[in-house]
Amino acid sequence: MRTYLDWNATTPLREEAKAAMREGMEIVGNPSSVHSEGRAAKMAMERAREQIAAALGAEGADVIFTSGTTEAAAMVLAGRGIHCAPVEHSAIKVWCEQDLAVDGDGIVTAPAPAQASLQLANNETGVIQTLPEGLGSSDLTQAFGKVPFAFNWLGITAGFVSAHKLGGPKGIGALVVRRGTDVEAIIRGGGQEQGRRGGTENLLGILGFAAAATAAQKELEAGLWDEVAARRDALEERLLSLPGTIIAGKGARRLPNTTCLLTSGWKGETQVMQMDLAGFAISAGSACSSGKVRASGVLQAMGFDDKAAQSAIRISISPAMGDDQVNRFADAWESAYGRWRERNG
Amino acid sequence: MRTYLDWNATTPLREEAKAAMREGMEIVGNPSSVHSEGRAAKMAMERAREQIAAALGAEGADVIFTSGTTEAAAMVLAGRGIHCAPVEHSAIKVWCEQDLAVDGDGIVTAPAPAQASLQLANNETGVIQTLPEGLGSSDLTQAFGKVPFAFNWLGITAGFVSAHKLGGPKGIGALVVRRGTDVEAIIRGGGQEQGRRGGTENLLGILGFAAAATAAQKELEAGLWDEVAARRDALEERLLSLPGTIIAGKGARRLPNTTCLLTSGWKGETQVMQMDLAGFAISAGSACSSGKVRASGVLQAMGFDDKAAQSAIRISISPAMGDDQVNRFADAWESAYGRWRERNG
Repeated sequence: MRTYLDWNATTPLREEAKAAMREGMEIVGNPSSVHSEGRAAKMAMERAREQIAAALGAEGADVIFTSGTTEAAAMVLAGRGIHCAPVEHSAIKVWCEQDLAVDGDGIVTAPAPAQASLQLANNETGVIQTLPEGLGSSDLTQAFGKVPFAFNWLGITAGFVSAHKLGGPKGIGALVVRRGTDVEAIIRGGGQEQGRRGGTENLLGILGFAAAATAAQKELEAGLWDEVAARRDALEERLLSLPGTIIAGKGARRLPNTTCLLTSGWKGETQVMQMDLAGFAISAGSACSSGKVRASGVLQAMGFDDKAAQSAIRISISPAMGDDQVNRFADAWESAYGRWRERNG
Repeated sequence: MRTYLDWNATTPLREEAKAAMREGMEIVGNPSSVHSEGRAAKMAMERAREQIAAALGAEGADVIFTSGTTEAAAMVLAGRGIHCAPVEHSAIKVWCEQDLAVDGDGIVTAPAPAQASLQLANNETGVIQTLPEGLGSSDLTQAFGKVPFAFNWLGITAGFVSAHKLGGPKGIGALVVRRGTDVEAIIRGGGQEQGRRGGTENLLGILGFAAAATAAQKELEAGLWDEVAARRDALEERLLSLPGTIIAGKGARRLPNTTCLLTSGWKGETQVMQMDLAGFAISAGSACSSGKVRASGVLQAMGFDDKAAQSAIRISISPAMGDDQVNRFADAWESAYGRWRERNG
């Protein structure tokens, strides 16, 4: 019996997404074809686009389907001299000057927002930013489905989202831009997505994304994530009662499900492996950087030294998770930590 | 009861692909995560990669997953001064100097192959090229699964494929390159696909692609497409017995399922609409360019005038299709053609 506490890395598929994809498997046509089969495929795709726009609070904005946030970011950031902070995901950082200031709680200052990209929520710490009016773009990936926001009210030009962080399939996402924003295609030919992203569309992925986004939005409105926050807070209270534990970004507003736990000196990867053997999936830093043994740039930017940063583990709980599962994890981690402290005391 | 004769635009999902995707829906992890859930996802993905390499005859080559041929082409063609012929798909042409010579049967000459891209089979006419040794890259999309070839024996550096042309899902494909070929990522961050293509992988798409490729390869080896060719040839014989009909590329080796029919003066789009109403899905040119009322660049390059080129329809039959269905289409088209000739005689 495994317990999955790595919700920010990827989520299991929601039943709604599975059902939409199973149904979509019977669609025959290419959305670009003009015959009945093509028009049916197109109609299903456009309905999904509207659902996603509604879930994002982006009615009237342009939702351009991409293979995910990483591609969406490349479309609007590459070669444009955009500024960002070192707390951004590597898919953003790779295109930016990483010169924005970060405080000890992970809060970023963007003095020239039009030329900046700033995430709404951090994947490792869960820290939520207040986006400055007129911001160029924002990585909305981790926030989408976990905290309420409306793209149309964020005052930003472009946003990036991925389906697999809220119960949709991996490999599908979107670039959302204010209507009429100039977007130059990097994948060209065929003229799909109004010439902004070529290639036959990932129809099944799109249908799964739409179903997941709608379901996630409903859960959010029903207050499910408030319960998650309460559960996470109880976990953190327990962890902080132990000596030598720090929770990064604790002073900031954060995602309701995310805990970034530091125990300076005890390597995060070691903990991930020990917890894995004990039946719990957690991570050290982001999934993408796993396997690479280096300290988190996010934590270093927040002022933690290498030893502290290398000790970080991320616990990101599922909204479906009960108190018992969280407690079982806390028990397992606490006894492992106790053993480590005995050896290193 | 509809009859789908637009196999080259996209194919229905194979049962094998559906089953693989349904099963894959239960996979929880992110392939980049190091815990059990992540490793299970990674293992499924790598097994799929091997299956696809085997189906492509590309054992030992690098299979880099992309959202399809359009993205794969952008990765190796953009900004490199590559030469191609106007018969290429728009996803290739958009990046190339379109200056290679094309003869009346659609056969291309590439005098400097290392700096050229040349498709293995054309999507509109089905014309198959003999690829010159040392060719830089080839769009293998339409050939994959319909005619036997092995990437490792083609003498090319890079190939592009899409799953949805052989019974796999839309929105997944691959760039195949000889091992060690330098490929610069256009979608960056996260380090997936050995740093050549960032972003969490489209796991379900990949699993569906692998199952479809394996099934397609088996069908091909079992000789299924020889029957398709016989059926297509019988159709063409009947069509050519009518006055004023031309089949483009008839003198060349072609895909077994493809007929590009010209009836100078009778607009292709009109035929597509009439046949759609009669229950048959065909296309005028490629799916991607549908809706755009202009003559096919492929046919113009082969020397057809605008009037002839604008009359083109593509009939691309399914391997599962029986003689009766093909005959019913031929009956419907023949009587529509008869009516048109009466009005325009």
